[in-house]
Amino acid sequence: MEIEDGSVTRILMGVSESTIKGYPHASISSRGAFDWTIQKIVRYNTSAFKLLFLHVQVPDEDGFDDMDSIYASPEDFKSLTDRDRAKGLHLLAYFVTRCHEIGVSCEAWIKRGDPKEVICHEVKRVQPDLLVVGSRGLGPFQRVFVGTVSEFCVKHAECPVITIKRSADEAPQDPVDD
Amino acid sequence: MEIEDGSVTRILMGVSESTIKGYPHASISSRGAFDWTIQKIVRYNTSAFKLLFLHVQVPDEDGFDDMDSIYASPEDFKSLTDRDRAKGLHLLAYFVTRCHEIGVSCEAWIKRGDPKEVICHEVKRVQPDLLVVGSRGLGPFQRVFVGTVSEFCVKHAECPVITIKRSADEAPQDPVDD
Repeated sequence: MEIEDGSVTRILMGVSESTIKGYPHASISSRGAFDWTIQKIVRYNTSAFKLLFLHVQVPDEDGFDDMDSIYASPEDFKSLTDRDRAKGLHLLAYFVTRCHEIGVSCEAWIKRGDPKEVICHEVKRVQPDLLVVGSRGLGPFQRVFVGTVSEFCVKHAECPVITIKRSADEAPQDPVDD
Repeated sequence: MEIEDGSVTRILMGVSESTIKGYPHASISSRGAFDWTIQKIVRYNTSAFKLLFLHVQVPDEDGFDDMDSIYASPEDFKSLTDRDRAKGLHLLAYFVTRCHEIGVSCEAWIKRGDPKEVICHEVKRVQPDLLVVGSRGLGPFQRVFVGTVSEFCVKHAECPVITIKRSADEAPQDPVDD
């Protein structure tokens, strides 16, 4: 058993924005999954890994925040799209900056659609060695209402998957928030 | 974010014997999970990891193989127990030897009981950073009959879990075998 010369282990991470009002940028579970991956897998062996960050924007949810706004012209929709893109880029910039500080190479991109479907589709396309997804660690009752991206990916992604559950002391007041 | 000095990432692996008649020692999925962990996670950074091998012997299944034997005295049962222990030790010796060749430190032990329950109990006891389990990658129809240890562990183990599915070209004639 030999490790291929020059090969790196490519880890795809699905990252999401925080749902907490006024809470900026990356969700608690995304940051937890990133920290865990660096501390437990990459460690100081930074040249052996490459992190791939995928952020999936949900078209309907993004619109929901803007129900108070008035859309009177195509230009209004264009500005919404620009704002969404800016938020997504800001999220990815957080992880890309941290990777540069740590010295591990990375790539990051945005897709739109249903996160669980898009993540599994991107796994098929980019063929990472490993998919890491954060999870709020909700109980069975809460899961019925919010669904979980991580459970779907564990079942359907065509590569090994690690789910990193948010630790109890990091959970916000409403555990459905992240 | 600092990696603790002197700390290692402790990876618990649940390993099982092959179910194939005359096929010696470690199951295909256990060997696949081990190879994947070395190639994709440990890589050449051997001093940063410690592998913990847990083999769970199922009392009923072990007895089942011996239905043709005659148990006439307590001594007969004792010899069965010795034989089981020898098989389990042989299995663990395979993984311990490979770790020594690679230069990664390890520990190995045997427990008896229901594998999925015992693995989750041992996770609680030894608190590894990560649990790796192999899986036959069976379809939903086959899973109903054979159950899967990996699905239970993903849901119930109190640490992150990676399931490594057996690759299609390694599957034996009967995919329920391993």
